[in-house]
Amino acid sequence: RGLELELGSSTQTSHRLLAYSDALLSIIATVMILPVAHTKIHPDQKLGESIQQLLLAKIAVYLMTFLIVTVAWAAHVRLFQVIELIDDVLALLNLACMMIITFLPYTFSLMASFPEVPFGIFLFSVCAVVIGLIQAVIVVYGFYHPHLLNQQIQVSENQNFYKSHILKIILRGPVLCFLAAIFSFFFIPLSYVLLGLVIIFPHLTRFITWCKTKIVGQRDEEEEHQSLETFTFYLSEPLSKERVEAFSDGVYAIVATLLILDICEDNVPDPREVEEKFHGSLLEALSEYGPNYLAYFGSFVTIGLLWFVHHSLFLYVTKATRLMGLLNILSLAFIGGLPLAYQLTSEFAEKSHNEIEAIQVSCVSTFFASIFQFAIWTTALLHERETLHPFARYGGKEHAFMFAKLALYPCVSLGVFFLTCLLSEFSTAIFHLMQIIIPFAFLALRIFVRISLAVIKSMMSLSRRKVV
Amino acid sequence: RGLELELGSSTQTSHRLLAYSDALLSIIATVMILPVAHTKIHPDQKLGESIQQLLLAKIAVYLMTFLIVTVAWAAHVRLFQVIELIDDVLALLNLACMMIITFLPYTFSLMASFPEVPFGIFLFSVCAVVIGLIQAVIVVYGFYHPHLLNQQIQVSENQNFYKSHILKIILRGPVLCFLAAIFSFFFIPLSYVLLGLVIIFPHLTRFITWCKTKIVGQRDEEEEHQSLETFTFYLSEPLSKERVEAFSDGVYAIVATLLILDICEDNVPDPREVEEKFHGSLLEALSEYGPNYLAYFGSFVTIGLLWFVHHSLFLYVTKATRLMGLLNILSLAFIGGLPLAYQLTSEFAEKSHNEIEAIQVSCVSTFFASIFQFAIWTTALLHERETLHPFARYGGKEHAFMFAKLALYPCVSLGVFFLTCLLSEFSTAIFHLMQIIIPFAFLALRIFVRISLAVIKSMMSLSRRKVV
Repeated sequence: RGLELELGSSTQTSHRLLAYSDALLSIIATVMILPVAHTKIHPDQKLGESIQQLLLAKIAVYLMTFLIVTVAWAAHVRLFQVIELIDDVLALLNLACMMIITFLPYTFSLMASFPEVPFGIFLFSVCAVVIGLIQAVIVVYGFYHPHLLNQQIQVSENQNFYKSHILKIILRGPVLCFLAAIFSFFFIPLSYVLLGLVIIFPHLTRFITWCKTKIVGQRDEEEEHQSLETFTFYLSEPLSKERVEAFSDGVYAIVATLLILDICEDNVPDPREVEEKFHGSLLEALSEYGPNYLAYFGSFVTIGLLWFVHHSLFLYVTKATRLMGLLNILSLAFIGGLPLAYQLTSEFAEKSHNEIEAIQVSCVSTFFASIFQFAIWTTALLHERETLHPFARYGGKEHAFMFAKLALYPCVSLGVFFLTCLLSEFSTAIFHLMQIIIPFAFLALRIFVRISLAVIKSMMSLSRRKVV
Repeated sequence: RGLELELGSSTQTSHRLLAYSDALLSIIATVMILPVAHTKIHPDQKLGESIQQLLLAKIAVYLMTFLIVTVAWAAHVRLFQVIELIDDVLALLNLACMMIITFLPYTFSLMASFPEVPFGIFLFSVCAVVIGLIQAVIVVYGFYHPHLLNQQIQVSENQNFYKSHILKIILRGPVLCFLAAIFSFFFIPLSYVLLGLVIIFPHLTRFITWCKTKIVGQRDEEEEHQSLETFTFYLSEPLSKERVEAFSDGVYAIVATLLILDICEDNVPDPREVEEKFHGSLLEALSEYGPNYLAYFGSFVTIGLLWFVHHSLFLYVTKATRLMGLLNILSLAFIGGLPLAYQLTSEFAEKSHNEIEAIQVSCVSTFFASIFQFAIWTTALLHERETLHPFARYGGKEHAFMFAKLALYPCVSLGVFFLTCLLSEFSTAIFHLMQIIIPFAFLALRIFVRISLAVIKSMMSLSRRKVV
């Protein structure tokens, strides 16, 4: 850092700016879970169709906002892989960009509530266009002060080529949004198609090139690689591992504390009520909130342990490819849904019609959150030489242990799901038992794995001896 | 990182664990501002005494929780300055510790609502005791596996001495809390005294030793320093700069997004209402929320720019002393109050009785948040050789610019405060004008400073010439 300060008095490393942006973006990505979680449902009301539809609509809005914000985040990561140092102007421009991004979830939910009103679509598109324009200004500013750029680009002779290429990538989305904004006043369906393209486009192009290389063969790709060598580094460069971690940490942290935010605000009993209703006994008054505490405990433990698994996994990941990034985001999207699931269990804890449904929703979210983590690991194993530390590769000394760690939550959540189907009478008891046992399971996991490996080895040597 | 992975397959760097803990702790520290911000006040209701008292009580709870959580955070920082590497067991223990810490604000607000009920005090004290016990287990575990410890302690021969000393520091608070928990059933005032001691104790002991050295003279301190050399490193070691930054970033990020969380949840108009009340015009319906958007804009800009100042300052800070840490926490506590202030301005925007009060509250919070940042800078200048980069010291080339950056917000907020007193008719206009101008002021600041420096220089040379 000292060295970079010397470069110019106003030049700074971007490390902290990026950490702050990641924190903001991760909070914003998960914000639309709040309207879902705070949907009021009476305990004795059956999860009827109208409420189910309302919930489903809100969940869809949440998932879409999450994906949209992560698209903005990915663009931000790419941008600051090109611009590695910042100065005051860039820091302020970035803050302006963040401010507009924090408005995206709101405009999107407006658009979702008023799908027929041009103004809703217009507002959302304008936000996206402004974000794109600010990012373009950042790029232009960066190339105007080349000492801020990535070393590799700084050295290259084709700076203008890079510049136009990066601008093209960054402005592709905003141009589509601009068209969507214009068409919103004439022909709304076309606007939606254009907006949909923005999200799918990067994955679509990637999928098409992947298909091409599969069909035409590998040689073509290599040729292409050589001819475009000067700027493909930017496209094929994996996501910055540090920023994937920072963004994930932010999501895990805000999701873990969402329930306690509610508890702190709503569950402090009123002194007068305690006096009248419970004859001044605070303990009795608090016991009414028991299910809420249990729900908080469950959600914090689950999210904490899923963070723990994520942390263990990324300790051995050396590079995060695009596909791994996508899987990580899908995992995070389900983790964002966990507080909702636990809120449901807390509201329905006292023998209501929906108890089993609530528990099953929790199990399903946990299952998907953890299975996508497992998928990150299997994807990493496909290119293990580039993406994994030797310890975690096939045959590495942590391989079996890592496998067990990642497989624990999918297995347990699936098991509980089917158990609650079979023994619906004891579903709550089973669910709470799982929550208490799992942390200890993680503590004892290393011993388990060692024992089972030893057993497998001795079995194999036994069978070999028999063969001999 | 690779090197540390080699040490033992289960040993890991603690970097990400600490970042995650910082994120959790910063969210939890600011959580009690929510009950304050969501206190319902009618626009035409004058801020009467009863509501003022309610607000003041809630603000007091917020400030105390903030300080308590930061005490827990500081203990956590100290702990992980001793234990530098972690393994799975430590990671899980740390998560358990975090879970109890996230409960502290809730138990504290219970205690504050029921000051006369023993159970409230008991609950809070038990939380604190459990946190202390988990931290003690972490220390014992760390010393049992010495390869996890700080290099300096690992090498030293007095490991047991260190261990008991650190345990003493960590368990001091919990023991007091334990006594408070017991006395809560016999004699409540004594419990409060004991709990108060926990917060004041570290500062008190430091203040006493400071007084002692001032009275008895420096020599004594040096003697003491030599005799205790083996373990004072731990006490006098400045706070880890990285963690101060991470914690501050977390607070700035959650505070910046608090208002948008509310907006996303509450301000999406109901389609049916829009149809009936505004004849389907979304634009008209949204214009009702105009003041909320303005408030969000104002709060995001203020917090973003204060983060920017903090970032610029810590770029040149090489070490954060204890006093700087304390001032930083005070600054953050006022920043946590900003969303409340802006919520007030948004609710009272339409010419109500309390418009001027709301704007003045905003100015006062901004003033204190920024003046404490300025105080960090002046404190750093007192020991500039140890704490500041050469550029920022007296005579360094960034010194004047840094001074201007830090002085901008205190000056502007003070100016607006007095202007609203004088021109109470135009207070809203002045306030909004300030919010729009300030970002541009920061952009143009460097030029301003250069011009004024040039002017001062020429004035000085002129006056010298006259003297000659």
